[in-house]
Amino acid sequence: MEVVKTIAELKKIVKKVKQDGKTIGLVPTMGYLHEGHMALATEARKENDFVIMSFFVNPTQFGPNEDYESYPRDLERDKKIAESVGVDVIFAPSVEEMYPTDGGIRIHAGRQATILCGASRPGHFDGVLQVVTKLFHLAEPTRAYFGQKDAQQAAIISTLVRDFNFPLEIRTVPIVREEDGLAKSSRNVYLSPAERKEAPAIYRGLKRAKEEYLLSKNAEKTIQVAKDYILSNTSGRIDYIELLSYPDLQQVDEKTDQFVLAAAVFIGKTRLIDNIIFTKEGETENV
Amino acid sequence: MEVVKTIAELKKIVKKVKQDGKTIGLVPTMGYLHEGHMALATEARKENDFVIMSFFVNPTQFGPNEDYESYPRDLERDKKIAESVGVDVIFAPSVEEMYPTDGGIRIHAGRQATILCGASRPGHFDGVLQVVTKLFHLAEPTRAYFGQKDAQQAAIISTLVRDFNFPLEIRTVPIVREEDGLAKSSRNVYLSPAERKEAPAIYRGLKRAKEEYLLSKNAEKTIQVAKDYILSNTSGRIDYIELLSYPDLQQVDEKTDQFVLAAAVFIGKTRLIDNIIFTKEGETENV
Repeated sequence: MEVVKTIAELKKIVKKVKQDGKTIGLVPTMGYLHEGHMALATEARKENDFVIMSFFVNPTQFGPNEDYESYPRDLERDKKIAESVGVDVIFAPSVEEMYPTDGGIRIHAGRQATILCGASRPGHFDGVLQVVTKLFHLAEPTRAYFGQKDAQQAAIISTLVRDFNFPLEIRTVPIVREEDGLAKSSRNVYLSPAERKEAPAIYRGLKRAKEEYLLSKNAEKTIQVAKDYILSNTSGRIDYIELLSYPDLQQVDEKTDQFVLAAAVFIGKTRLIDNIIFTKEGETENV
Repeated sequence: MEVVKTIAELKKIVKKVKQDGKTIGLVPTMGYLHEGHMALATEARKENDFVIMSFFVNPTQFGPNEDYESYPRDLERDKKIAESVGVDVIFAPSVEEMYPTDGGIRIHAGRQATILCGASRPGHFDGVLQVVTKLFHLAEPTRAYFGQKDAQQAAIISTLVRDFNFPLEIRTVPIVREEDGLAKSSRNVYLSPAERKEAPAIYRGLKRAKEEYLLSKNAEKTIQVAKDYILSNTSGRIDYIELLSYPDLQQVDEKTDQFVLAAAVFIGKTRLIDNIIFTKEGETENV
């Protein structure tokens, strides 16, 4: 496994790999890898000849009061994990390497970014689109891998690729769960033993609500089922529960054929997110 | 020469050409070709193995009161011209083919678009960046060709490619001029014989002003020289004359090493634009 820090080095490798007619899988991360990232890399390894994993804590997607400075970084630890899942090249550029110039051009994520988690993070998804556009142009992947856990991010990036004709495929990898159904997250360690015990009710509530929708096709009732279940079975406070079309993130109607049912719930002080993506036939798919 | 109207057909051709290891030159146009476009295609033909010319009157770069509907279109005439300069493939998609979906993501051109011709065309350069991003992703060119006549457009697209790491090179082709120095333009036919006779003073005024800047390094005085010359030698009205850094289009200072001196002048009712791009050593370059 090779570790490169400059764009020039990365481009040289990409050029060679493409000349050899090989496919490239890109796994963009902010580092500090957990099992979710490993699932992305494993999938990329299965589907491509060559796997590039990027580590870059992107300043443009953090708000002024967010944790850019304190975001955890540990490249030595990450290198070992990346190597263990078969990554070929790590791209770990500096901020100066990624943003040496600024002519003021910006990508605005639009209406998809104003809802769900985006409502409380203005500009966040603009920064995400800026950095993934740059990474897509630098790594020239055949496929790029994102986790379904951040369903809104995956949806907005899928829309970018579709509407701007990027020559690559977005692969959204299913949520990795604990045995009791709780979505894996670095934040689960913040939960007290009692909170940890009630947290899986979020996923169970979403599953019940999905069944409700398949029966009644009533979005309002569906959301109420999830809310009632989660509030009855946890001490939590609901930030949002939404049923939207996927990947457009619009209000659902009779023409919608793919759905995302997404929740953000505070269990104690810990904000947990989870979601289910499903088709109108009820199948939960790797989208 | 092949004419394709769908994205699927174009992508098939591009895939084959790239598999053969050939370079691709892309010449994006709105059709109704004139000598400026022919100069772009001739340059593309010289520098690349394969030349794609696109014809697409892009609705998203026209304002509500602009001439989108009446913009001249003549694909049969354009085909003959393109073939005569050695174009390999014409890509002429419909609006539905280019914009089948809209998730609301937009590219905003930023401060570079608020000056010069952009000041009177809000949103114009956002639409230009949207369509060139799509064309770059579809044609995957090694080099893309734009005319220096539209210096602001060339500057903003160069900035997009630089700041977002598009894997291609922007080539800006020098202005094609009449024997007396007037920049060639479809609009020159609107000039009366008397107006046509005075119009070359715009370019002579810009050349004098450039010499002034190389001597005095005084931007204000430079612009005044151009204004005085043009007002003394034509019956025209000046829309703007600006000296800016190129391609950033910022105020010039001692660190600026490349300049654009740009003018828009009404001669009678006809608005003519012209510019000179030069380095601090005074060389006029193909940038």
